[in-house]
Amino acid sequence: MAAACIFCKIVKGDIPSFKLFESEKVFAFLDINPLSRGHALVIPKFHGAKLTDIPDDQLSEILPVVKKLVKATGAENYNVLQNNGRIAHQEVDHVHFHMIPKPNAEEGLSIGWPQQKTDMDKLKELFAEIKSKM
Amino acid sequence: MAAACIFCKIVKGDIPSFKLFESEKVFAFLDINPLSRGHALVIPKFHGAKLTDIPDDQLSEILPVVKKLVKATGAENYNVLQNNGRIAHQEVDHVHFHMIPKPNAEEGLSIGWPQQKTDMDKLKELFAEIKSKM
Repeated sequence: MAAACIFCKIVKGDIPSFKLFESEKVFAFLDINPLSRGHALVIPKFHGAKLTDIPDDQLSEILPVVKKLVKATGAENYNVLQNNGRIAHQEVDHVHFHMIPKPNAEEGLSIGWPQQKTDMDKLKELFAEIKSKM
Repeated sequence: MAAACIFCKIVKGDIPSFKLFESEKVFAFLDINPLSRGHALVIPKFHGAKLTDIPDDQLSEILPVVKKLVKATGAENYNVLQNNGRIAHQEVDHVHFHMIPKPNAEEGLSIGWPQQKTDMDKLKELFAEIKSKM
């Protein structure tokens, strides 16, 4: 728990929310500034700003709860998004997974995909570097 | 396994990949058309097109492996994205989680956020409807 964190306050019940699910480790609620009908958030109760700040055992239930939201909203097309860092569009510093239905081209998440030119030699080099750290 | 699925072929080794991680249930590799340096994919070996097609017990290791990728690439800012459906930008019909480093404004995922006007009455109605299906 972080005293100043708005999502920790929601978990505690100090700030009201449209709570859709709660278990020992996970909390889910409607996003009140939705991109589309049914846009909801799933968060670990454990406070941490970025995904790497959350212990593995606090994460195992997140995706199953996202699945529950998908089924309950009846979304057929949807994006699951978790942002880390201001530059990556994170606005609240408590890890949260967006489940955003994509009913049509206008509503829901809009994605830009600035694909880089494939360079196999650079990829091979990068691969060796990352692999050595896994 | 789906015979025609490119990701199932990668898991089997019939198509080569820059494999970063493999366990009984999970496989991770570099995206060869990256949006930024270190852009990688984590997939369940279990074949399914959308998140709701994957059994819960095949998903528990996904986010811990995403964490490993973040640490190995050294990404500080990053997006975790899983798309479901063509309209939601899914291109391969085997569930995959993108880990996309966001080193600067130009590279990495570009996000459009067409936020809808908050309408508390509509949200309350929607909440009751979704909650009844959770």
